[in-house]
Amino acid sequence: MTTSPDKKAYVEDLTDQGDDFSRWYNEVVRKAQLADYSPVRGSMVIRPYGYGLWENMQARLDRRIKATGHQNAYFPLLIPESLLKLEADHVEGFAPQVAWVTHGGDEKLEERYAIRPTSEAIIGHMYSRWIESYRDLPVLINQWANVMRWEKVTRLFLRTAEFLWQEGHTAHADEKEAMEEVLRMLEVYRDFVENDLALPVWPGRKSDSEKFAGASATYSIEALMRDGKALQAGTSHNLGQNFAKAFDVKYQTAAGDWEFCWQTSWGVSTRLIGALVMAHGDDNGVSFPPRLAPVQAVIVPIWKSDDQKARIAEVARRVEADLSKTFRVKADLRDEMSPGWKFNEWELKGVPLRLEIGPRDLEAGQFTAVRRLDRRKTPVPIADVVTVSMADVSVTRVALSTAVAPAGRPVTLRSIGVVKNVRVSVIGNVAPTPCSTVAASGEAESAKSAPYVTGVRSVPL
Amino acid sequence: MTTSPDKKAYVEDLTDQGDDFSRWYNEVVRKAQLADYSPVRGSMVIRPYGYGLWENMQARLDRRIKATGHQNAYFPLLIPESLLKLEADHVEGFAPQVAWVTHGGDEKLEERYAIRPTSEAIIGHMYSRWIESYRDLPVLINQWANVMRWEKVTRLFLRTAEFLWQEGHTAHADEKEAMEEVLRMLEVYRDFVENDLALPVWPGRKSDSEKFAGASATYSIEALMRDGKALQAGTSHNLGQNFAKAFDVKYQTAAGDWEFCWQTSWGVSTRLIGALVMAHGDDNGVSFPPRLAPVQAVIVPIWKSDDQKARIAEVARRVEADLSKTFRVKADLRDEMSPGWKFNEWELKGVPLRLEIGPRDLEAGQFTAVRRLDRRKTPVPIADVVTVSMADVSVTRVALSTAVAPAGRPVTLRSIGVVKNVRVSVIGNVAPTPCSTVAASGEAESAKSAPYVTGVRSVPL
Repeated sequence: MTTSPDKKAYVEDLTDQGDDFSRWYNEVVRKAQLADYSPVRGSMVIRPYGYGLWENMQARLDRRIKATGHQNAYFPLLIPESLLKLEADHVEGFAPQVAWVTHGGDEKLEERYAIRPTSEAIIGHMYSRWIESYRDLPVLINQWANVMRWEKVTRLFLRTAEFLWQEGHTAHADEKEAMEEVLRMLEVYRDFVENDLALPVWPGRKSDSEKFAGASATYSIEALMRDGKALQAGTSHNLGQNFAKAFDVKYQTAAGDWEFCWQTSWGVSTRLIGALVMAHGDDNGVSFPPRLAPVQAVIVPIWKSDDQKARIAEVARRVEADLSKTFRVKADLRDEMSPGWKFNEWELKGVPLRLEIGPRDLEAGQFTAVRRLDRRKTPVPIADVVTVSMADVSVTRVALSTAVAPAGRPVTLRSIGVVKNVRVSVIGNVAPTPCSTVAASGEAESAKSAPYVTGVRSVPL
Repeated sequence: MTTSPDKKAYVEDLTDQGDDFSRWYNEVVRKAQLADYSPVRGSMVIRPYGYGLWENMQARLDRRIKATGHQNAYFPLLIPESLLKLEADHVEGFAPQVAWVTHGGDEKLEERYAIRPTSEAIIGHMYSRWIESYRDLPVLINQWANVMRWEKVTRLFLRTAEFLWQEGHTAHADEKEAMEEVLRMLEVYRDFVENDLALPVWPGRKSDSEKFAGASATYSIEALMRDGKALQAGTSHNLGQNFAKAFDVKYQTAAGDWEFCWQTSWGVSTRLIGALVMAHGDDNGVSFPPRLAPVQAVIVPIWKSDDQKARIAEVARRVEADLSKTFRVKADLRDEMSPGWKFNEWELKGVPLRLEIGPRDLEAGQFTAVRRLDRRKTPVPIADVVTVSMADVSVTRVALSTAVAPAGRPVTLRSIGVVKNVRVSVIGNVAPTPCSTVAASGEAESAKSAPYVTGVRSVPL
């Protein structure tokens, strides 16, 4: 293991996961400069390094959303109170969490506006104006936006008053097609989270107590964190005709009759950044999967004399330029930091691959490649650094380790890359609750069969 | 000119630009399904076709913003009133336009929050916490976000209560570097708007009455619309040390002294979509430059018999698949619309290139390519359609026409593509006001030298 006196300054005051996982999380998010607290209650600032993760997630998920036939659009941030009230369960579920706009400039508004906690209401209203005939269906629209839920207790990324997300909203001519859409998007999320976030997930149907306010049924993917707890990573709702009836979203059939549409909605949010941190991080910091890492590889030069410095920096810059054509790479040529300090900093920030080059490496015509995941060291000839060492970054890799969570339960998974079938086996350790033993809303049965599961979050599909 | 009985249904009830430009604008934005009114005062819905334009703009501008060294981040939507008040000119300028959040759920908040009209205040506050030493400078951050200004009179895209934009916020160690940044980003905007929006612009410094609230100086690019009026298309502000002093944004120099930072901010918004419509549209609808058009080419088949239909549809689908590898292309195979109806619809929606294929074309092994800009028709062999006809879409083209605006002034430009030096000559027709004849804030002088200019918006650089 690499240690240096500098570690003190950067990593040593990071709480160990085993000592206090929750504290470790709060510290590492701020030390890695992913996010910071703000003077706005419950709202955070997403710093460039954290936002870089989000941009990479957006790009890769947006491609999947478009490939399944959806288009993006943008609806108003504000929702008139009267509109929010049209669907009874919906307003009951969200009203306690709504931030209200009451004044514009000096003028008191005639009607209050909610800052959108989600957009079913405003989008339902617009769909009622846009949809006339069966020829207009399906309507397949997605929105990337900020939303606000006035939460009492907040945590960076995991639960904040304001967060960023995408919300898909679709309208269909019949129930079967709507249900296919619900499951299609759940599968898109599973594919995205398992392949790009490298997080095995557990697709299921939420219990009645956890379903979306106003939905007929809510489906989710649940991911496992290193503290042995499940985190909801994405949801897909079958809205039935509930919102169509409330917002009068009707269409004329080929036969000339009028019918209510069948609707769905589905979303993932910046909470996924929290999931990445909690599932892949360790006592040295965060650890990001290569496809999403804002910096995929960092080049760290090691020199003593000025002569060495000149020659090594030249190679570092040249390799940085070469690698940058294909990867997100950074050469860390700062003078005021020691190599050891840099090692610790970039490990804390979860860069998947470190390329060290010192005087002996230079003489041997190589880099020493060090993998963040397991600190495995591999010498790589300078001429081959693009093709050889970067395979580590570009190729999805398998690396799974099992740890034991504080309470002694066998739980944790550790993966950069995707493992076929791991979902089943790992999940099996945690909540071995076959579908058949759990009633649709039966929390009691499952608590018996998996006593350490407190309440059923989701019934496996 | 192509006419058909169908035109009645789609385009004939579009007001002519010459009759009522403002009415033409409102109609064409809705008929082309770029945007729609919403039940929220002054807020619009950006429909998928309009949002596609915005996504293309974002992608091309974001690349430029990153290439000049900036990173994206995300700051809170809400700004505590006490924070907004710290810079006196700033709050005076924006307070009358602020939407206020006063309640969270059922609870009245201790302090009101403004929905951000712009983010200098919240970002200034965070910079005061992040910046310590000269080594932390410059800070070069950009944000893509929604903002809100409670306007009394609104127009789709051009002036709405909520709009989407990017706002850059930078902090520098000295005045000279900050001024270089202000002009660098003005040049990025000029390059983006002239090359991608195909709109010649006029870079200048805003008069004192029009500068940003709290800035030392505001620079802008002004573009000319087909009604002969200038539209502000982007701004770049030199904030001096005004915000640094208000928000305590200080850094320690290499010598150990503490200094206030020099700051800038700069932005463009969804208003640019309105600019595209007003600068390139005509009596047949909107007309989009190829680099930004959501659909760059549409394939319209023409058939009479079922046999023709089968063979032509097959070719249309095959060419659509080929072209889609490189371009945004759509084959319009709808049965219920006539070809003439489709021609009018896609002209109204501003698709740069139409590829027609009928029985005679099929026999001749060709498409008939029709350019939206001037309806020029060119036969293109089917085998060459990618390379030959799409040159029209991919290559920046020069096509400038001069029209006379209603009031009889020589003004309008019409361009898809970029014309070297056109900025100077076209602008010359409109506001022949050399820099030297205009005092820094002297609206009187300019009104004399260019009597049809009502007030100086901007002094040419």
